[in-house]
Amino acid sequence: MRKIQIFDSTLRDGAQGEGINFSVEDKLNIARALDKLGVDYIEAGNPSSNPKDLDFFKRAKSLSLKHAKLTAFGSTRRKGISPDEDAGCASLLSAETDAVAIFGKTWDLHVLKIINTTLEENLDMICDTVRFFKSHGKEVIFDAEHFFDGYKSNPEYALAAILAAVRGGADCVALCETNGGCLPDEIFDIVSEVVSKVDVPIGIHCHNDSGCAVANSIMAVKAGAAQVQGTYIGYGERTGNANLSSIIPALSLKMGLETIPKDNMQYLTDTARAIAEISNLKLENSMPYVGKSAFSHKAGMHIDGVSKLSYSFEHIDPDTVGNERRFLMSEVAGRSTVLKKISGIAPHITKNSPEIQSIVDKVKELEHQGYQFEGADASFEILVRKELKMYKSFFDLVYFKTSVDEPSESEFSSSAIIKVSVDGKTEITASEGNGPVHALDGALRKALEVFYPQLSSVYLTDYKVRVLDSKNATGAKVRVLIESADDDSSWTTVGVSTDVIDASWHALVDAIEYKLIKDGLK
Amino acid sequence: MRKIQIFDSTLRDGAQGEGINFSVEDKLNIARALDKLGVDYIEAGNPSSNPKDLDFFKRAKSLSLKHAKLTAFGSTRRKGISPDEDAGCASLLSAETDAVAIFGKTWDLHVLKIINTTLEENLDMICDTVRFFKSHGKEVIFDAEHFFDGYKSNPEYALAAILAAVRGGADCVALCETNGGCLPDEIFDIVSEVVSKVDVPIGIHCHNDSGCAVANSIMAVKAGAAQVQGTYIGYGERTGNANLSSIIPALSLKMGLETIPKDNMQYLTDTARAIAEISNLKLENSMPYVGKSAFSHKAGMHIDGVSKLSYSFEHIDPDTVGNERRFLMSEVAGRSTVLKKISGIAPHITKNSPEIQSIVDKVKELEHQGYQFEGADASFEILVRKELKMYKSFFDLVYFKTSVDEPSESEFSSSAIIKVSVDGKTEITASEGNGPVHALDGALRKALEVFYPQLSSVYLTDYKVRVLDSKNATGAKVRVLIESADDDSSWTTVGVSTDVIDASWHALVDAIEYKLIKDGLK
Repeated sequence: MRKIQIFDSTLRDGAQGEGINFSVEDKLNIARALDKLGVDYIEAGNPSSNPKDLDFFKRAKSLSLKHAKLTAFGSTRRKGISPDEDAGCASLLSAETDAVAIFGKTWDLHVLKIINTTLEENLDMICDTVRFFKSHGKEVIFDAEHFFDGYKSNPEYALAAILAAVRGGADCVALCETNGGCLPDEIFDIVSEVVSKVDVPIGIHCHNDSGCAVANSIMAVKAGAAQVQGTYIGYGERTGNANLSSIIPALSLKMGLETIPKDNMQYLTDTARAIAEISNLKLENSMPYVGKSAFSHKAGMHIDGVSKLSYSFEHIDPDTVGNERRFLMSEVAGRSTVLKKISGIAPHITKNSPEIQSIVDKVKELEHQGYQFEGADASFEILVRKELKMYKSFFDLVYFKTSVDEPSESEFSSSAIIKVSVDGKTEITASEGNGPVHALDGALRKALEVFYPQLSSVYLTDYKVRVLDSKNATGAKVRVLIESADDDSSWTTVGVSTDVIDASWHALVDAIEYKLIKDGLK
Repeated sequence: MRKIQIFDSTLRDGAQGEGINFSVEDKLNIARALDKLGVDYIEAGNPSSNPKDLDFFKRAKSLSLKHAKLTAFGSTRRKGISPDEDAGCASLLSAETDAVAIFGKTWDLHVLKIINTTLEENLDMICDTVRFFKSHGKEVIFDAEHFFDGYKSNPEYALAAILAAVRGGADCVALCETNGGCLPDEIFDIVSEVVSKVDVPIGIHCHNDSGCAVANSIMAVKAGAAQVQGTYIGYGERTGNANLSSIIPALSLKMGLETIPKDNMQYLTDTARAIAEISNLKLENSMPYVGKSAFSHKAGMHIDGVSKLSYSFEHIDPDTVGNERRFLMSEVAGRSTVLKKISGIAPHITKNSPEIQSIVDKVKELEHQGYQFEGADASFEILVRKELKMYKSFFDLVYFKTSVDEPSESEFSSSAIIKVSVDGKTEITASEGNGPVHALDGALRKALEVFYPQLSSVYLTDYKVRVLDSKNATGAKVRVLIESADDDSSWTTVGVSTDVIDASWHALVDAIEYKLIKDGLK
């Protein structure tokens, strides 16, 4: 089976997207998710333009990736010096990756007008730089920047530029559609010509300015390209890069090619959601294959058709890519899902039990208020227990009070007082914090540890805030997600309110109660 | 010049999108916007399936459209009766539009398994229904549902179905890629064959399940299609319909075809924003041609290139489609970006002035702390003014104090007290709110309006919170973005802190100071 290499640049080209601002920790988490999915290359940054990227490459050594090759990105040497003397080349080496991607100019206009050198010197810059990295034992991918515009304006020179990379020893030449303006037939024709004339594997790197990046990448593969570069959910400068979560299933499921390992195809959707979550961006509902609406049916006739024969209105089976079919505005929607989720807590419940409907109704009502249980299994379990009368609270809140003073008199600007009662005994305590939620979290746990010492093993590992109806500005509703862990496991809870402290409070209470339920105390 | 008809179905197929719920008023407003843009057909609903749509068609008579033909959508007659006896056909007539779009089955599987009739009867249903509407003087477009899947499974039957429509007198046959699973080369090949065999104009109607709807539509036109059906910004069931705001400029600006009137091309962006606004959905920043980021440059090298030669990193001139170029301020941006951004404030500064480097350094330092200026132009301007010693504060904070009580004694859980001083005079006041930030925002503005009455015209339009190092859980750093507006313009500010209240405070202060600077007070 013909293998197409998948080259992901979420951490490099994706980071150029508006609104994207990865921390080193975010980048490590995304690299883990991509490796688990099974992409071949993870292009993770440009160590010479950005100190944060250099830090990433240092810490990435501890990742022990199972499948992907970590790749550092940089440019050809500057004009008039050798690669040995070039600071950019040196910092690229210092990333200590097995593979490097080197971009160079192939459009004569850019050589003459943007980097202001001669056409000959540019060819030398390409050849020298590739040769330099080969002599250091690297796998070298040459990114032929603006190749298609260059080829349309001066085909001889554009070809000469990639042949310079081949002469330098490049392992692969990726043709970059940098400005994103090409249409699919142009890409097919030009890639076909290059494949027939160049002896190393050809890659394709598309941008979405014409809305054709996925189609252009597919057409390049049809023309003989052996590597597809893109970003997993299409992040990137301007309109974004080619969306690999659409390209991988097209190549594997529709064209019979090998991309990521076949058994990993079911992780396509989860990987998309994980990357969006880490990036703190909403995954577009309508995104092909992996979006929440990708297999959602709303028109009555479509729901009827799909119920009779799923492929009557679906291009693929949603399970194949780990997504699910949804029927919108329909009473039967959700029941099977709920049933699957609660089988562990209440195995006696069946699809037609009235409790199922009451849980579906409750979830719909809460989701309408802004809750989201997809990422908050622990809160969902508590909701189910409440609906099934399998819940008893572990404590009562008498009151809490948080305050923030500015300027503050101590190291901490915030403080919280809390009073709780458990089986008729009360405990009042206080805590300081970096902010009011931090203080409240500390005070609540301090008070409850008196009654439940095992809470000392619980720590919070993640805290997210999303403003829901941001048009109401500072009076808007917010959703808080809290991830907690003890020595055995981790769980996530959710709270919604117009007040970030109140929303956090609900998520904190669920987190603590879930731990106590889990420990089988009651 | 070859004319391609633009057929917009935002009001019909677009209404099937998840989260879309048009009122009749919304539909009238969208029809006005599409007519102003100059599309040829506005398919506005299915009067037989939806009483709201019938109401729309009644009220639409008062629209006096200048360019577009209003089109009603319905299906072929039911099996075993004549169109005269069919309630659906009757209600379609009652819409009193000049044009109707009639969909019918062309995939043998659907005929036999979904509508359960014979292949012959289905051909009669198509022919009879088209003939019926022709006899009532309508322009008839036949929508060949599932044509491509049908053609791949049984080409003779699929062709026979559209020839039945031609026999009935159809003015145009639109080939529908209903399940959205086809790739561009399949579309090209099949449309080419149909165009060579069928004597009426052929249309194309694509869905985006493979992420190829725009490319597929373009390839169909290259194969000879004379009409493109889609929805203006891609709304539609599942992954949406072909996005006309991407297709129109590709056909007109890249392929030299006639679509909407040439002078209206500049309204493409405004039309997209208007339709998103009426639909109460955020227009995707990354949407090709019309999105806010479509011509936004973030990487330093790209900004440098575009400044030298705009088409070095842009596939078209943003003005052509009524969009604009933006340079984003970020750690990957360099001195040219800063220079461009500050030319309005300090025209005397040049690229090599030491101030430029000190601003770049300051931005990098703050971004390292978690600030992000690419979406916060107003905070960036205040930073620049501070670095250039062109800043003087408008007030001093003496102190503030916010608190949250639970259970709360009033409608609002939160309150804030603030004391500020301006030119030696102090003002102390308080406010309640949904949350502590809401209360603080209210108190601050109340206090400052005493000194600066023009602040009463400022309102906050957006509020975003991003937890930065979420692994520190409730003690984590947060970034707050606040968008404010007055009657003339809107601006965005940013604040970062471990305390969401403190972060919001910094963004609020910048927002108010920017307004006062803008008004030229100091």
